Amino acid sequence: MAPERRGLLIVVSAPSGAGKTTLCHEIAHAVSGLQYSISYTTRPPRSGEVDGRDYFFVMESEFMRMVRQDEFAEWAKVHNNLYGTHAGFLTRMMAGGTDVLLDVDVQGARLLKKRFPEGIFIFILPPSMEILMERLRDRRSDSQDEIERRFRVAREEIQNFKDYDYIIINDEIKKAVRDLEAVVLAERVRITHGDQDWIQKQFLGP
Amino acid sequence: MAPERRGLLIVVSAPSGAGKTTLCHEIAHAVSGLQYSISYTTRPPRSGEVDGRDYFFVMESEFMRMVRQDEFAEWAKVHNNLYGTHAGFLTRMMAGGTDVLLDVDVQGARLLKKRFPEGIFIFILPPSMEILMERLRDRRSDSQDEIERRFRVAREEIQNFKDYDYIIINDEIKKAVRDLEAVVLAERVRITHGDQDWIQKQFLGP
Repeated sequence: MAPERRGLLIVVSAPSGAGKTTLCHEIAHAVSGLQYSISYTTRPPRSGEVDGRDYFFVMESEFMRMVRQDEFAEWAKVHNNLYGTHAGFLTRMMAGGTDVLLDVDVQGARLLKKRFPEGIFIFILPPSMEILMERLRDRRSDSQDEIERRFRVAREEIQNFKDYDYIIINDEIKKAVRDLEAVVLAERVRITHGDQDWIQKQFLGP
Repeated sequence: MAPERRGLLIVVSAPSGAGKTTLCHEIAHAVSGLQYSISYTTRPPRSGEVDGRDYFFVMESEFMRMVRQDEFAEWAKVHNNLYGTHAGFLTRMMAGGTDVLLDVDVQGARLLKKRFPEGIFIFILPPSMEILMERLRDRRSDSQDEIERRFRVAREEIQNFKDYDYIIINDEIKKAVRDLEAVVLAERVRITHGDQDWIQKQFLGP
């Protein structure tokens, strides 16, 4: 609200099969002034990917140096590649008044909450465990074992739902996008200490 | 979120000239499941007004009995007529899962906060004090003295802005309606204790 307002940190987590990635891409397009966080990765760029837009591509030695120097707000190894969110990147975006959207797992969210307790933490849920199982089965490429493993992991992840401020049930995607958009817009007009000083000055004078 | 979710109490205040009444009517139409609070009044019904829809019309003796029995969550005298919000009405609506919208002044909001600390308190501001003055002047019917009195009262009311959870600046009405709508939708997906029990049962079992 205040013109020099600090950006919000919006963290979205979900068990696999809840439809988080689609939701996050929809919301990043729908809401102006919302920047999808750009991660660091050791994975080589794919065709069409641009350094500094899709990812910051770094060598593993450089990534590990950043890990040792505690530069990542959260990082993880996925399929032998390293991915991390640079704390300084988030801080700079927010200081410039940009709201940053992050799409991380429950472990990542917990680490982010330690560094950024003022962040807004949103958990996406499927309508029910039965529907989650159906959605996992619909991915034809996965074996029965893989489906069952994913289901168990999802259940474990859901156990962390109390760490979050908002719960959005992704039953109908349009409704879920609308809810997620509402959370971002509402948090922008929630009163903060910075806003209080600005309102005092702007409306009531010194 | 939980099917048996308790309704929200949404309280909107604003200094005169901020455009609160228009905003509240727009939002009550735009958002489904949001019920404008029906006040009790001693004012006689105007043509077309329906008892139990626009107001609950009561005799002054009945109103004062309710005041003595502490049945009003807030009440006030305006132009020699009494207006009050029945606490039991609010409680019943909320218990039935209906979100209730109230449009009250800063004194009324303060009383509501005592009875309903879980309520959501929203303050509407004009873009600036200069624009507020212009808006008050545009009401041709008011004398210069009346305009100045309203401006002073508005300034005093604005001093209470810190009692509120959200501040919406009514610069462009469409944007303000969108912000107000976002607050209602976001608060519906904010996690509550009731939701926690429901999610636990629904997703994780006993």
